[in-house]
This record gives sequence, C-alpha cells and structure tokens, in this order.
Amino acid sequence: MTNSLSVIILAAGKGTRMQSAKPKVLQTLAGKPLLGHVLDTCDELTVTKTIVVYGFGGDQVQTAMDSQYAHLPITWVAQTEQLGTGHAVKVALEQLPKDGQSLILYGDVPLVSCQTLATLQTANIDGMSMLTLTVDNPFGLGRIKRDASGNVEAIVEQKDASTDEQRIKEINSGIYCVDNALLHKYLPELSNDNAQQEYYLTDIVKMAVADGVTIAAIEPEHTFEIEGVNNRQQLASLERTWQNKLVADLQEDGVQFADPTRVDIRGTLSVGQDVFVDVGVVFEGDCTLGDNVYIEAGCVIKNTQIGNACHIKPYCVLDRAEVGAGVDVGPFANLRPDTVLSDNSKVGNFVEIKKSTIGHGSKVNHLSYVGDATVGTDVNIGAGVITCNYDGVNKSQTIINNNAFVGSNVSLVAPVTVGDTAVVAAGSVITEDVDSNALALGRARQVQKADFQRPTKKSK
Amino acid sequence: MTNSLSVIILAAGKGTRMQSAKPKVLQTLAGKPLLGHVLDTCDELTVTKTIVVYGFGGDQVQTAMDSQYAHLPITWVAQTEQLGTGHAVKVALEQLPKDGQSLILYGDVPLVSCQTLATLQTANIDGMSMLTLTVDNPFGLGRIKRDASGNVEAIVEQKDASTDEQRIKEINSGIYCVDNALLHKYLPELSNDNAQQEYYLTDIVKMAVADGVTIAAIEPEHTFEIEGVNNRQQLASLERTWQNKLVADLQEDGVQFADPTRVDIRGTLSVGQDVFVDVGVVFEGDCTLGDNVYIEAGCVIKNTQIGNACHIKPYCVLDRAEVGAGVDVGPFANLRPDTVLSDNSKVGNFVEIKKSTIGHGSKVNHLSYVGDATVGTDVNIGAGVITCNYDGVNKSQTIINNNAFVGSNVSLVAPVTVGDTAVVAAGSVITEDVDSNALALGRARQVQKADFQRPTKKSK
Amino acid sequence: MTNSLSVIILAAGKGTRMQSAKPKVLQTLAGKPLLGHVLDTCDELTVTKTIVVYGFGGDQVQTAMDSQYAHLPITWVAQTEQLGTGHAVKVALEQLPKDGQSLILYGDVPLVSCQTLATLQTANIDGMSMLTLTVDNPFGLGRIKRDASGNVEAIVEQKDASTDEQRIKEINSGIYCVDNALLHKYLPELSNDNAQQEYYLTDIVKMAVADGVTIAAIEPEHTFEIEGVNNRQQLASLERTWQNKLVADLQEDGVQFADPTRVDIRGTLSVGQDVFVDVGVVFEGDCTLGDNVYIEAGCVIKNTQIGNACHIKPYCVLDRAEVGAGVDVGPFANLRPDTVLSDNSKVGNFVEIKKSTIGHGSKVNHLSYVGDATVGTDVNIGAGVITCNYDGVNKSQTIINNNAFVGSNVSLVAPVTVGDTAVVAAGSVITEDVDSNALALGRARQVQKADFQRPTKKSK
Repeated sequence: MTNSLSVIILAAGKGTRMQSAKPKVLQTLAGKPLLGHVLDTCDELTVTKTIVVYGFGGDQVQTAMDSQYAHLPITWVAQTEQLGTGHAVKVALEQLPKDGQSLILYGDVPLVSCQTLATLQTANIDGMSMLTLTVDNPFGLGRIKRDASGNVEAIVEQKDASTDEQRIKEINSGIYCVDNALLHKYLPELSNDNAQQEYYLTDIVKMAVADGVTIAAIEPEHTFEIEGVNNRQQLASLERTWQNKLVADLQEDGVQFADPTRVDIRGTLSVGQDVFVDVGVVFEGDCTLGDNVYIEAGCVIKNTQIGNACHIKPYCVLDRAEVGAGVDVGPFANLRPDTVLSDNSKVGNFVEIKKSTIGHGSKVNHLSYVGDATVGTDVNIGAGVITCNYDGVNKSQTIINNNAFVGSNVSLVAPVTVGDTAVVAAGSVITEDVDSNALALGRARQVQKADFQRPTKKSK
Repeated sequence: MTNSLSVIILAAGKGTRMQSAKPKVLQTLAGKPLLGHVLDTCDELTVTKTIVVYGFGGDQVQTAMDSQYAHLPITWVAQTEQLGTGHAVKVALEQLPKDGQSLILYGDVPLVSCQTLATLQTANIDGMSMLTLTVDNPFGLGRIKRDASGNVEAIVEQKDASTDEQRIKEINSGIYCVDNALLHKYLPELSNDNAQQEYYLTDIVKMAVADGVTIAAIEPEHTFEIEGVNNRQQLASLERTWQNKLVADLQEDGVQFADPTRVDIRGTLSVGQDVFVDVGVVFEGDCTLGDNVYIEAGCVIKNTQIGNACHIKPYCVLDRAEVGAGVDVGPFANLRPDTVLSDNSKVGNFVEIKKSTIGHGSKVNHLSYVGDATVGTDVNIGAGVITCNYDGVNKSQTIINNNAFVGSNVSLVAPVTVGDTAVVAAGSVITEDVDSNALALGRARQVQKADFQRPTKKSK
Repeated sequence: MTNSLSVIILAAGKGTRMQSAKPKVLQTLAGKPLLGHVLDTCDELTVTKTIVVYGFGGDQVQTAMDSQYAHLPITWVAQTEQLGTGHAVKVALEQLPKDGQSLILYGDVPLVSCQTLATLQTANIDGMSMLTLTVDNPFGLGRIKRDASGNVEAIVEQKDASTDEQRIKEINSGIYCVDNALLHKYLPELSNDNAQQEYYLTDIVKMAVADGVTIAAIEPEHTFEIEGVNNRQQLASLERTWQNKLVADLQEDGVQFADPTRVDIRGTLSVGQDVFVDVGVVFEGDCTLGDNVYIEAGCVIKNTQIGNACHIKPYCVLDRAEVGAGVDVGPFANLRPDTVLSDNSKVGNFVEIKKSTIGHGSKVNHLSYVGDATVGTDVNIGAGVITCNYDGVNKSQTIINNNAFVGSNVSLVAPVTVGDTAVVAAGSVITEDVDSNALALGRARQVQKADFQRPTKKSK
C-alpha cells in the first residue's frame, strides 16, 4: 500500500431547491463557491489526484474552477445520470489510481477541515475510515453501529433501525477515506436493488465489514464540517456559523468586535494587536490589518493591506488598496484598485482614488477624484480637485510633486505635472505643466454688476 | 343567510405604553400603520363594508387612513368611552347590515392573514367561528373548552379555570366570524356586571352556546397572526418576526441573503432568479429586482425597479428610480425620484441624480449632480459636472445629446443643450447651447508666476 | 461609626487573554474604559475617597483616568506583585481612612449600578455586606451559605463544597461593603497558606463570621452587574447585554427602534417623543434627539443635539454638531465639529460642514464643502460650492449674508464676504467681497470650435 492520496469530490447535484440557474456547488459561502472551499481544503493536503464528478451545469463548474484552481489540476468526470452516490464514485473509478487511498468528499459539504481529513486519513489503517458525528437528534439519519471493540459494524438506516439502534446518536457523514484497491473492488459490485433504484455508497461499509476490514470512525472538531447545503436557508445558516467561527478565532487573537454577529469575513483576515472593528464591516478576499487599526462602522474592505495605527472612518470602501501606517481615511472615501496611501497621508470625505500613489504626509481631504496620479510628499490637494485623466478614449497620468498646493475646484488635465512647492490657484484648469515654486492660475477676473435683478418665478 | 362579508375593526385604543402622541393603530410595522396592515388584508377579501371603531386620536386615524385607503371606503364609528371590546362592537351595530357575516378584527393585531380569515369565514357554518391558538404557555389567557365533538363549549378565563382547565393550551385570539344577525341579537344583551365593569365580547360565545349554535374554532398557520402590540418592545419583536417571514419566503424563491437577520423589507419585494442581497440592505415600498441582481452592503432602496444583472455597490440610496439591465451603480450613489438609468449605463460614486434620464451606455462616474436632465446614449459625463438647474426660483432642463463628452468640473447652466458628439472642455461654465460636433470652452488661459511666495503662518 | 464612604477599585490585572498592549481595565465597553464605567458609577454616589489599585500598565491607566476623571480625585496605589485580591486590598490600606465604610469594586466588573451599591451600603448595618447572585449554573463558583436567619455564614468554594452545598445557587460576586475598621483589622491577618499561595479577600467573610458580625447579602437587579471581563468574547458579550439594556430603557421611553439588536449607544442618549431610529445607527458620547426625530439607516452620531422634527437620512455622520428644529440632513452628509444648522435649514448629499453656522432656512444641498463659514438666513448654496478656507498654513473665514445665492461650482476664497441678496454666478472664483444685491462673476466667456476632432485611441 502506498500513501498517495486521491480525492473524489461528488459535485453533480443540481440543487433544485436553490431556485438557481447555477449548479449548487457554485453557490457561494463566504464569497467562495462551495466546491472552492473543498478544493482549497484539499490544497492544504498532499493530494496526487483530484477527481471532481460533475453533472448539472458541468461547463459552468469546470470553467469557474479551472480558472481559479489551475494550480490544483482537476480531473473532471461526468456523471450523466443521477443514480446515487455509489454511482457517482463508480464513474470516477476509471480515473482513479489502482493503489493509494482516496478521500470521498462532497461539493456541497464545504467546511470539512484539513485537520479532520488528515486525521481521517491517519485513521485508515486497514482499508477504510469514515467521518461520523454524535448528534442530539439523529432521527432520519444513518446510525453508526459499532462492535464491542469500537470498530464500525454497520450503517443502519432510519427505516431499518431497531428500537435500540434508533437510540444511537452517532451518524454517518458520508465522508470516507478508502483504499483505492477496495474502491476498485467494491464499487463494481454495488447493486441498485432498492426502492429508489439508486446505488448507495454506504453499501461499501457492509462489503468491507464482510471482508473483515477494520473500519475506524472519527469525529470532526466542529459540527459544521459535515453540514451540507440544499437550499438558501441552509446556505445562510452555514454562512453565519462559519462567520461566527472566523470571528471567534479573531477574538482569540485579540480583535475587538463591537458586535461579533455584525461583521462578515469572506476570505482571510490577518490582524495585528489591538484592532477594533465596528459594526457592519465587511471584509472580502485577503486583507491585512496592522496594530491599533481602528475601523468604524460599515466599511467594506476588499483585498487590502492597512498599516499600523490607521483610522478608517465610517463607510469607506477599499478595494485592492495599500494603506501605510498612521493613515486616516474617510468617512465616505472610495479607494479603488491600485491606490497606495503612504504613511501619515490623509484621505477625507467624498474622495475617490484610483491607480494612484499619495505620498507621505499628503492630504486629499474633500470631494476629489484622483486617478492615474502620482502625488509626492506633503502635498495638499484642496476640495473638489479633479484629475481629468480621461479624454474619452485614453487615460493619462498626473504628477504632483512634493510640497505642492493644489487649490480647490482645480481641474488637472492629464498628462500634466505640477512641480514641487508649486501652487495652483483655486478654480484653475491646468492643461500645461506647472514649474516648481511657481503659482499657476487659469481663471477669469472677478467682476461685479451692482443691483442685479434676481430671476423671478416663471408661470408654468 | 347571505354570504356578504362585513369587517369590524376595533381601533380605539390609545396605546399609552407606546409613549406616543400618535394613536396606537398608527404606529408603523414594516413601514405601514398597524391598522393599514389590517385594511390591506381586508382588501384581499371580498368585503362589502369595513367599519372601523375609533377612539383616541380619531381624527389622526381617519385622516391617515382615508387618504391611503380611499379605494376601500371605511365607515367610521366613534367609541367615545372605553367600555370594553363588547362595547366597541356594540357601537358598530348601527352601521352593521342586518344579514351577512362579520369578521371582528383588531387594529393592533396587524398580521392576521387573508388565508386565515378566509378559512375562518368558511368555518362559520352555524353562525359563529373563532380563531384560536395552541400555545406552550397559556397562563393568563382565556382557554378554549371544547365539547366531545370538538366544538367550542366555552372560553374559560384564567381566574375561573379549574386545574384541568388550566392545562388547556388552546387560547382565544379574540378574532371571530359571526353572523350579523347574532351580533344584533347578542350585543344589546351584553352585561358589564363584572369587576372591571366592562362589556366583554367573549360573552357572545356563552350566548351562542346557550342558543345551541355550533361554534367552529380554527388555528392560523403562524403564531404571529394573532399577536397584538401594546408597547415598543412588542412592536419591535413583531417587526422582526415579520421580517423573518418575508426573508424566509424570499429564500424559498431563491434569493441569497448574506445574513437573513440583517435585511429589512418594508413593503413588497419582487425578485428574479439568483438575486444576492448583502448585509444591511433596506427595501421600502414596492421594489422589483431582476435576475442576477447583486446588491452590496447597506443599500437603501425605495419604490424602485432594478433590471437584470445590475450591480448596486455599497451604500447606494435609490428612491423611485427605474434602473435598466446591466447597470452599475455606486458605491455612494443617490438616485432620487424620477431617475431613469437606461441599460448598460453606469453611475459612480458621490453622484446624485434627480428627475433625469441617463441613456444607454452613458456614464456619470464621479462627484456629479445631474438634475432635470435628459442624457442621450454613450455620453460621458466627467467628474464634478453639475447641472445648474435652479436659479433660486425656477428649475430648468439640461439636454445632453448622444456621444457627447462633458469634461470634469463643468457647470451646465440650464436651460441648455449640448449637441451630439460635442465636447465640453473641463472647467467650463456653459450658458449657451453647444452645437453638435463642436468643442465648447469657457475658461481663462493658464498663466504662471515664477517663484511664488507661499503664504506664511499668521500669528493669531 | 461615620457613614463616610471610600471606594477601593481593584484594577491591577493584565488581562493576558485580551492579547492587548493595553491593561485590561482600559479596554472599552460602550466606548468607555472598563474602569471608567466603575468610576462614573462611583461619581453618582457620595464618595469621600477613591482608591484604585493598579498593577500592569499603571502609567497608561493613570494617564487615561486622571485626564477624564479629574473631578473625582483618585488615590493611586501600586500593587507591584499579583498576590491575590486580598493582597490588592491590603496594599490599599495605607491610604484607607480608619473609619467609615468602603465599597470593594473591580475595574473589570464595569456595570454594577449605583442603585445596587447604595442598597449594598444600606445593607451594611453590622460591619459588612456583600453582593451575591442566584444563578442557574453555579458550578465552579463560590457558594453563599446562609444561616437559619438568612445571614451569610460562609463562602464555600467549589472544591470544598459538600453535595448539599453544591446545590446552592447563590454565588459570591466579590463585591463588598465593609467598615474600614474591619478592613484594617482583618487584612493584615490574611494568610496565603493555600495551593495558589495567594491572599484571598473572601477570607474576610470567615473572619467576620468568627467575630460575630452579621453579614447581609443582597442581589443586584441585573445579572450583568457582577459580570467580569477576561477576554474579547466576554467583552463583546457584555457589550451586547449592555446595549440591550440601554435600548430596552429607551423603548420604555417610547423610542421606536427598527431592530433593537442593530443599534449602538456608547454614551448617553436623551430623547423626545416619537423618535424613530432605523437599523445600524451608532450613537457616541452625549446625544439628544427632540420630538419626532426620524433617523434613517446607518447614521453615526457623536456628541450631537438634534431638534424636533428633524429627518436625518441614511448614512450621515454627525460629530459635535448642533441641529435645530425641522432640519433635513443627508443622505451622506458629514457634519464635523462646531457645525450649527439653524431651524429649517437643509443639508443634502455629499456635503461636508465644519466650524460653520448655517442660518434659518438656508440650503446646502449637494457636493459642497463649507468650512469656517457663517451663512445667513435663506441662503442657497449651489452644488459643488467650496469655501477655500485654507491657504496651506492659515484658516480664514467666509461670510455669506442673508438671501444670497451662490451658484454651482463656485470657489469662495476666504477671507471673503458675500453680501445679502447677492448672487454669485456658477463656476466663479470669488476672491474679493461681493456687495449686497450685486451679481459677481469670475469666469471666461464661452467660446466654441465647430467640428472638433475628438481624441483618438493611442496605441500603447
């Protein structure tokens, strides 16, 4: 026996109750497709072959997964008819190595952990191990009957269970680790001679017991690891369970959440010490927060790094931004991809920044749009300043050098450079480069007409 | 006996514990007055006469309801003294037809369903039917005593209940369907010979039983249907129960809510397939979402239609807007009444639109105010563009024709037209129409003063 | 015996499980340090001396508290070694008066109420009283053993409890009121002859009983009053408990919360009649809301007064603002410190106001920045108007007098005054004062170039 590990993921279900045009395994939990969760977990194991059995919407599934999991080559196997879990594994056999072991997983059971699967694999010492769970209310679920020495003897379905067996609270999860040799042996022998005329994977337990195989059963740390998703309610429920888990882990790490039930983490969140996260904050993708970061209500933060001692005020949206240390942002700031805010810079309210670097100590405090710009250190950008970076077809760059002062309501028509320590007067339209230390103006003289007759109300 | 149906709604309570200047039945649940919920439910039935018994704050109640429910003419009856539920129905008698049936409802029991009332009406085959509920803890509530054949025998109040009767878990809701003939017979006979000196409506059950009337009792599908509201806690609790119900129904329809407990629906929400609604979204009035609509955190959407495949980014406010298909909105967009966004248009951050149509494929991406405007197709409106639609007394129109390009920080002084394929240079104030294909400018030449002396800090 | 009351607050714990650089008592609950809650409660009592026993991070603790509680002079006592609660009180002895009584409190038990402490003090008639609580699950906690007459006989620790004693559900909170004479007598006698080699404060109960002191025990109204905080989960849990309490009290006062679990009150909130607070609203500091105030989703309101009948639309941020009656704000308005909005004024979307007064009936409706300004009555400030109040080093004032009309995209370069009933044309840069009734313009003539060649796409 070799220890090479394959994974067979059953992902053929349509998920009718989802009422969706998407196959079930592409529904998202914490922002990631259900199947993606399983694939990411497999990616933490040393897997030699990953077989996904697809059915409904297979093209969609393959397209979505192949692009995101190119590093984890997937062997796709079609299950054209839905003839039960045993049948699904059977169609995978042709792609399955003759030796080694396989984990049998489900595309709609997204949260099984790597640790649990590693333990399950370790537990497989005689050909088969299975994941079970002891629950308060096992009604309707397959019970695990164990023999005197604690090894699995049988899975007893509800309808077949004696009164004593009905009292068993350990149930089958459907997740197994099986030697490939046994799969190749048992699956062709599966029968569909039952009421549903389906091939049941659970029958391999019976076969293994008959063969004298000692089957170990282990339980996961968390109940949610074996929970499947069949409808929107279950999806939402598992989402909240998962969020609670992520939040509890971060609380252990010292994060203060104003309300642990009002935060969403859809990806990974790395944190420093003494981070505060107020209510209604949403994290997506990979985010990092330094020490003493203070995030106020309702910020939406995606794939962003935030340095030490930053203060993100209410209702900021940050997407693929890089924020240095000691930076104040918001409220109501929108940092779009490729925004870099250097240390001690400041971005205020109603400010949009895109593909731009704001230098150390520089300020963009009010009602501005800075796009495709490089802003030096200690620059002050007044209220209502706009980089006119788009002429309808081309995008152009704006460069504002150190210590420059750009007055309010200025339009900087790119490509254009404002020299260091230059001043641009309020309301100017700047179409030509401004020299260092110069004052640039582009505005008309103020004139006045006395005793102006105000407009009067027109009759309609 | 005819089947013509009247409704008597008892709505005279002050609701002292609400601590409000408004009568209780005008307190809102899911954005609608409690009494409005009952009237809307009646509106789904075929009702020939709707009698509302008012008391405290009757003018407020009548004014509020008559304007909103003019299609459902209400006969208002004053209960000048608060002498019990029996008394309230008694004062309605003068307006009640002699034949037909009546539903007796309560203005502060807002969520009884049309289906339940229809079933209750159907159940009234011998003169009276009543709505009851089996609860876990009936303490303090009137128990329903049934005879051997299951018909109602009596309502036993807590203080009068024997030990056996106290074990009864079916309680009285106070909602009845009664033949008008019986109401006209029994109510004048009601006595207030009791500790509270009140006239109890429940006494009509005793009278009917004495008369040999077979009283049917049915239960509603949901507990909340018979829940009344007496204080702010109960109001908030019923609000959340109702929200959970609305959300669960939409989940059945396939909507994915990031968190079912963090969404509010105050009105009707119609949805297509594969709609995603993130946390903190609030819907008010009648809203429609097409297929594949993706709504991010915190959007507030009122009386708005959103077409297929739209993406509404975080923190947008939409009020009486009409959004076509494939439109991106936000973050931080404010679409005010009579905004029409055509297919594939795009409205970005810090943009306010009011009484305006944005044409197919056109973009208003940053920091703009577009009011009283008609924008053609494939127009690009730069950052900071403002339609100056108001001169202090009059509102005027701005027309921007197809393919026009309006530069940043432009002020369009209405009434004004920008011709198709015209360009308006950044920073211009446009007071006269711009011809098609022309470039319009209204700005001073840029000048520069070298070695400008920056301001120095003044001593204070 | 005199009734002069001292308070000894034990605040030496590090709070290792908080994973924080801050000492535990500086962690915040409802926006205030844990120790601050206790000090504020003491401030409601008549306390002659407040002794805080500090340990870890003592400098931080003293600095933070001395600045905020200067009115409540704190006697700081260092506990350099962590040798138990008895030791902590012992080190305080040198500062403790010889007569009078002392409350013994904990810096990490923040929510004990003034009423409870007053009752505890009253209950101390023979030298000692203690605060206890009857709980469902007392496992692990010290049980209160009472004698036949109901006086406390002993505190029995879990490990020492007999089967009968384990059934006792009344537990010790650790909070006492003790005559100073007894503290001076007992604490020097405390022994650390136990497994942990710690000095236990609970031993004084044993000593008092041995002395024949009748010890009264009273229970607090709320369980949370004796809950301590050791990690982030407990902190978050106590935060939500406290928020629920604050919200329930406000519901009693008649406030309608759309969702009682989605509002945060970090300070004091005073309310008028018929206030509505939508989901996701955060209050910080001292806030006041008048009658009929309607606050929509997600507003963040800090140290702000809001007058009657104001409507605060979604996602406004108000900080140290003063809002008159009948004012509409938002959505997306940012009122910064020292903003005064007079009655019937209106501030619209994407507007920032700072250190400015907006007069009666005046409007700043769109995309403006008003800073360091005095705006008269019935002024209309157009969209995109900016007060250029900063020249890079100095801040200057803008004055806009009654009935003035400031057109869109105007830059007002401070210091500058716009006279009453004056008009400033759209797009003007105003650097000189505008006379009353005058029209001021500062803009170039509009010119047009026919058949303008639009830019073409550049190859990259």
